Amino acid sequence: MKQFFLFLLLGFRISLYSQTRPNIIVFLVDDMGWQDCSVNFWNQSTSLNKIYHTPNMERLAKEGMKFTNAYSAPVCTPSRSSMLTGVNSTHLGITNWTSPWKNNNTDSKDDQLSPADWNVNGLSPIPGIEKTYYAIPFPILLKEAGYYTIHVGKAHWASMGTPGANPYNMGFMVNVSGHSAGHPQSYYGKDNYGNIPGKSTAQAVPDLEEYFGTDTFLTEALTLEAIKALDAPIQNKSPFYLNMAHYAIHTPIMADPRFIKKYLEKGMDSTEAKYASLIEGMDKSLGDIMNYLKEKKVDHNTIIIFMSDNGGLSISPLRAGKEHTQNLPLKAGKGSVYEGGIREPMIVKWPGVVRGNSIANQYVMIEDFFPTILQMAGIKKYKLPQSIDGKSLLPILSNASFSDSSRSLIWHYPNKWIDKDGPGINYYSAIRKGNWKMIYSMRTGKKELYNLSVDIGENNDLSEQNTVKLRELSTLLSTQLRQWKAPMPRFKKTGQPVPFPDGL
Amino acid sequence: MKQFFLFLLLGFRISLYSQTRPNIIVFLVDDMGWQDCSVNFWNQSTSLNKIYHTPNMERLAKEGMKFTNAYSAPVCTPSRSSMLTGVNSTHLGITNWTSPWKNNNTDSKDDQLSPADWNVNGLSPIPGIEKTYYAIPFPILLKEAGYYTIHVGKAHWASMGTPGANPYNMGFMVNVSGHSAGHPQSYYGKDNYGNIPGKSTAQAVPDLEEYFGTDTFLTEALTLEAIKALDAPIQNKSPFYLNMAHYAIHTPIMADPRFIKKYLEKGMDSTEAKYASLIEGMDKSLGDIMNYLKEKKVDHNTIIIFMSDNGGLSISPLRAGKEHTQNLPLKAGKGSVYEGGIREPMIVKWPGVVRGNSIANQYVMIEDFFPTILQMAGIKKYKLPQSIDGKSLLPILSNASFSDSSRSLIWHYPNKWIDKDGPGINYYSAIRKGNWKMIYSMRTGKKELYNLSVDIGENNDLSEQNTVKLRELSTLLSTQLRQWKAPMPRFKKTGQPVPFPDGL
Repeated sequence: MKQFFLFLLLGFRISLYSQTRPNIIVFLVDDMGWQDCSVNFWNQSTSLNKIYHTPNMERLAKEGMKFTNAYSAPVCTPSRSSMLTGVNSTHLGITNWTSPWKNNNTDSKDDQLSPADWNVNGLSPIPGIEKTYYAIPFPILLKEAGYYTIHVGKAHWASMGTPGANPYNMGFMVNVSGHSAGHPQSYYGKDNYGNIPGKSTAQAVPDLEEYFGTDTFLTEALTLEAIKALDAPIQNKSPFYLNMAHYAIHTPIMADPRFIKKYLEKGMDSTEAKYASLIEGMDKSLGDIMNYLKEKKVDHNTIIIFMSDNGGLSISPLRAGKEHTQNLPLKAGKGSVYEGGIREPMIVKWPGVVRGNSIANQYVMIEDFFPTILQMAGIKKYKLPQSIDGKSLLPILSNASFSDSSRSLIWHYPNKWIDKDGPGINYYSAIRKGNWKMIYSMRTGKKELYNLSVDIGENNDLSEQNTVKLRELSTLLSTQLRQWKAPMPRFKKTGQPVPFPDGL
Repeated sequence: MKQFFLFLLLGFRISLYSQTRPNIIVFLVDDMGWQDCSVNFWNQSTSLNKIYHTPNMERLAKEGMKFTNAYSAPVCTPSRSSMLTGVNSTHLGITNWTSPWKNNNTDSKDDQLSPADWNVNGLSPIPGIEKTYYAIPFPILLKEAGYYTIHVGKAHWASMGTPGANPYNMGFMVNVSGHSAGHPQSYYGKDNYGNIPGKSTAQAVPDLEEYFGTDTFLTEALTLEAIKALDAPIQNKSPFYLNMAHYAIHTPIMADPRFIKKYLEKGMDSTEAKYASLIEGMDKSLGDIMNYLKEKKVDHNTIIIFMSDNGGLSISPLRAGKEHTQNLPLKAGKGSVYEGGIREPMIVKWPGVVRGNSIANQYVMIEDFFPTILQMAGIKKYKLPQSIDGKSLLPILSNASFSDSSRSLIWHYPNKWIDKDGPGINYYSAIRKGNWKMIYSMRTGKKELYNLSVDIGENNDLSEQNTVKLRELSTLLSTQLRQWKAPMPRFKKTGQPVPFPDGL
């Protein structure tokens, strides 16, 4: 009889849980710029917003909250690792993208500076792995709390030969196509997504053999697989977490044949038309998943967080047009600490909590996802090896006008991303506090100061006009970088590390 | 209040379920012969049994029931498809191994016979896919009934570009390394299991990037992944099904460095020593899984079914020594309808139901797994597109001396497996009823008859002495082949199909 009551209690707890805990989806797009959609994330619609078609993002924004000041790191592995751990990428020492190959520093060669000592193998859920940062990703905590955890698409948290390369070690119960690579070899089923004997690279996309030789575009295949994976938890009334991490819209910029036609017919440059088709294909995926949730009657209990991992690519000829103009009015693009490299389209839908059509202007960052998601899932007690830099978004989600101008956001990219320096690209740090943003060039020592509230394009350097603010941000940034033991490049001539911004 | 009681009832059902339904593991080895272990599956220990070390199989046999007359099809895809669907491979029309490449008949060219019309793309869980057989695999039913279903290792049910290539379509919630290929490109982590840019084939093993560049042998990597995948259902007290389908001991015959030394020191031929090391590595995996179940205290509620998918390879120089002697006293090996090609080591452990150290001599076949596993899981009501040929093993499992000599088992291999014909290899059918077995050569029309109770080596052809039995089996076999619409090769000269054995 005692046992019977135990069953009863246990059973009750399980049932209650399954009714109340929300499902959570992070819909993470790769390399998508702040304006690469028809939703505007500013106080006005831009010309780019008018080019792209993302009706499902519009629908999501209507049902949720738009963030106009959301940020990621300037490139993917740092953002992705930060999101999973709640730790700023500087603090993780994962400041550049990781190679699929172990112990392979992806920094370009430089005449002036030698590489910073960063964690070239990425993130690890197990301690003691060389050149990695050991931390517990939130999916492990979700899984332990009974969530059914699914990863679909790009992972890119760590190099082959280390545990972080495998989503199954990061707390995911299901993995489709996540591995150590940061982009797909091909988006085409006819190319087997790259899996062609003798021709495949480390970027050949795994786990999609069903679609090999077919016309199924990668974005579609991943969506179908995600929906398939959702079947079990929905049927079993288990709460789920889906990390829907599209390879789109990363290079290779290939036409999504379902959407390319109208962009070409508009007379767009062919590369830009392909780019637009990748965006619309991604948007269809969002719509398909939203429709599926509705059809299964779980949409009312499912949180969707839309995000991108860095700014839109602004390198030509990978993109068309003049270099670093693709995200105007934002300066530069992916890889840069200017707004073009880090400002993201972000939307959160949370039925019953977040008001539809709401707009939050508070600046937030991808490391905030960790404490936010755990709070959404009602997970309060956990022990972590890492200390969290992110802040829960719940005060904002429940009150769009929430404002905190005392917080600092920090970007630190002590690496050489590409051979040729660009605006804010290669060896830059930045800090934002309130509407003020400071940019620091490690190569030249130059500091710039912008007021984003009136100068989103970072065109009007106020460093000479406002030396007080410059000094304040310089000190704040330096203190934080020192505290995080931020990797710094060294001058080849002297062997000395580049000074912190307040050390000049 | 009403709602509260509903919760209570629902909860109670879930809890009760989680306590009572057994976990099920099929531990399926690839290409393992009947004597490729230290457990004897006969009435005596053979010289091969004395060569190999499989202490964990011995432990399993001690805790379960040994089957001395267990059968598979002569090659892998037919056996594996048969196991998942309960349908004889002849009836499936999947009579040969499937190519990773779609619409690619794997039959060797022949001067006399043109290929039979078989399902060259394998099994499909979705109707209307060309050159496939549509059937519902049991993992779909287990999943629907709340089982947590995991596939690890070799799948090989269907070709790329068809749904059956993807374990997620076959009812598995987790897939690690299962795809369209039938063997690994390499067993070595240092070779990335084949995933080397520019050098990978369709056999490069997916999903194991964590181990790339390490010394982790494939068998070990798969075991670690299986144990990892078991964590969630054990923690959540959900019943699970694990399809632990090792790539071992299929070619390429590569040394498992953990075990090779002692076999070489014994003075064994180097290829045979490697083969023995593959076996012992597989056995360690079995032991590791058994230990894990015990440590997690779920061993008492977990059924383990050990099986192989065809006989040991007997082709030289892939194996050492004279061709087709590697399984003596059994004739021939993989690909043959003689006992060497189809007789398997099989053990079932089922705590509380199957008595330890018990021996069942009833002949059984891999298509019996389907109804058996569903019965074990308590799944009684289901609708299927296929009709089941297998029989539940439960009467045997609860009574080792169960006997049924009225049943017929049928093998039909209307394909040319390898360029050079061998004993029972290329265009053969066979039937066993009681202790009698008839062999039929489609190429020559010759029929042979053996009494397995006294002639396990099929050396003494009694077809002339016992024409009554020959005619009985010939008729039985023909009737069944006709009923199943068995694919038949055609004579190139006449364009006519090879006659059924009673049509001569």
